[in-house]
Amino acid sequence: MSLYPSRVVLREVGMRDGLQSLSSVLPTERKIEWIDAAYAAGLREIEVGSFVPPERLPQLADTPALVAHARTLPGLSVSALVPNLKGAERALACGVDRLLVPLSASHAHSLANLRKTPDDVIAEVGRIRAARDAAGVKTKIEGGVGTAFGCTLQGVVPEAEVMRCLAALLDVGADDVSLADTVGYAGPGAVSRLFTQARALAGERLWCGHFHDTRGLALANVIAALGTGVDRFDTSLGGIGGCPHAPGASGNAATEDLAFMLDDMQIVTGLDIDALLALRARLTTWLPGETFHGALARAGRPLLTGASWTTLPSAA
Amino acid sequence: MSLYPSRVVLREVGMRDGLQSLSSVLPTERKIEWIDAAYAAGLREIEVGSFVPPERLPQLADTPALVAHARTLPGLSVSALVPNLKGAERALACGVDRLLVPLSASHAHSLANLRKTPDDVIAEVGRIRAARDAAGVKTKIEGGVGTAFGCTLQGVVPEAEVMRCLAALLDVGADDVSLADTVGYAGPGAVSRLFTQARALAGERLWCGHFHDTRGLALANVIAALGTGVDRFDTSLGGIGGCPHAPGASGNAATEDLAFMLDDMQIVTGLDIDALLALRARLTTWLPGETFHGALARAGRPLLTGASWTTLPSAA
Repeated sequence: MSLYPSRVVLREVGMRDGLQSLSSVLPTERKIEWIDAAYAAGLREIEVGSFVPPERLPQLADTPALVAHARTLPGLSVSALVPNLKGAERALACGVDRLLVPLSASHAHSLANLRKTPDDVIAEVGRIRAARDAAGVKTKIEGGVGTAFGCTLQGVVPEAEVMRCLAALLDVGADDVSLADTVGYAGPGAVSRLFTQARALAGERLWCGHFHDTRGLALANVIAALGTGVDRFDTSLGGIGGCPHAPGASGNAATEDLAFMLDDMQIVTGLDIDALLALRARLTTWLPGETFHGALARAGRPLLTGASWTTLPSAA
Repeated sequence: MSLYPSRVVLREVGMRDGLQSLSSVLPTERKIEWIDAAYAAGLREIEVGSFVPPERLPQLADTPALVAHARTLPGLSVSALVPNLKGAERALACGVDRLLVPLSASHAHSLANLRKTPDDVIAEVGRIRAARDAAGVKTKIEGGVGTAFGCTLQGVVPEAEVMRCLAALLDVGADDVSLADTVGYAGPGAVSRLFTQARALAGERLWCGHFHDTRGLALANVIAALGTGVDRFDTSLGGIGGCPHAPGASGNAATEDLAFMLDDMQIVTGLDIDALLALRARLTTWLPGETFHGALARAGRPLLTGASWTTLPSAA
């Protein structure tokens, strides 16, 4: 396993990608508890919400308050999604460490989800970069290329189009770029191919991988991406999150499951798996009726507490 | 992905590992339909049942009839599980191509599940080898070392004990040996480590990997095993199968999900995924009330039928 990174960062996106797909509206105090417990469990990058019009996503309307709280936690990178310049200006004013601008490489998905073409988004990232530079702040701008492995609305998304979007985002001023399997179409072969190309293009500015477990392949895809050198993944506790255009989607890679797998691979994450499981259990009580995913919570951690057959009475 | 085998064999074990864990008893005619449809979908290795006393597992009492039918299909390797010499003698008389003798590397699991110690099983494999040689038949003898990654009853299973069992099985006359994560404890790190050691020990006589999806890692574990050169895996349609000593177990790696992943990795399996999904759908009607697993059946195959953004009206 020596080709894999020795250390991997999980960015918790449940408060954004998760909550935006649920009908429940969680009170701000609960979200602050969530942030504090996630931080205590070792998470050091959290996407706390979106700067979208509150009437569009009331679940995320308290994002400014969450940013303000999260910024008080030492060493925590606080990120938020922004769909456009207006949202970016609000995010910059709140002092986020990183803002993520989503772009759909699928033209059809882009129009349905963002009401813009990919090139409209690329131009907007240029304006966001100008606004960031004018503000003189250190906020990082990340261009996240979604539907990178295919799209439920459009079908095939050509790899060349994904690469074109990545290059254009970097050209207009994104600091980093990421690849997302928004609808859960990716398999390890496609992941290995596309991330290898993306790294050749973007180098260290290839920031993060984002996988959904729609076809049960999220963790296998992480392994494929690790093999190309990717060392940061978006995950959500309990795997909450989906896409309105991805029927049957079963959520993001679950934070606790991925932490467990990486621990087995002796890849350092800094995460306390039991604390993650405890927080996930609290989330299920805060969000009754919502669907949670994840195998580790169902099956429990393996009982490997040091017993061995040589110590069992029956082996005497 | 060039380090992986270019061709992989899936051995369907749903009729044995699956049915033995279900309370339903499927009529022999249905099982024959199952064999025929699995064969038509491209499966060329099927474990059709077990030669255990019919009163212990009535679900599998028709194994001799199934072997007789399966032997009529050209190119199909027909295997069956045997717990002891008596079962092996029956299997040899029926003309199976391969008989699998299970051994639990966990002493506690071995006593609970087989009522024998690992060394009792090793000695029995020696007797089975003698019986096979005396019969003058070509039946292969496979020693399957289970609980190789830990055990719900015992906890840790030392790697050295697993290797000792593998070596002893080969020494007493097993043609091939396999490793199984009977209770779903394995992660990719442990898989890579143990299969690398096993290959160093057994070479080409390391035959097969057997993973359960208890903690959502079955497919990730397959990738880890592929990386060590393993090119054969036990799977079951719909992931049916479990272990009475593994609470929360969620079945075997699902044949259709693994076929889908390998196809994405451009690894040849010879399998028709749509035919596998169709057969899985029939199984759910034959086994009402039983729990089926697998993500592909839930989410469907990706809609990648050649459309691309350049051909969509909205992109004009």
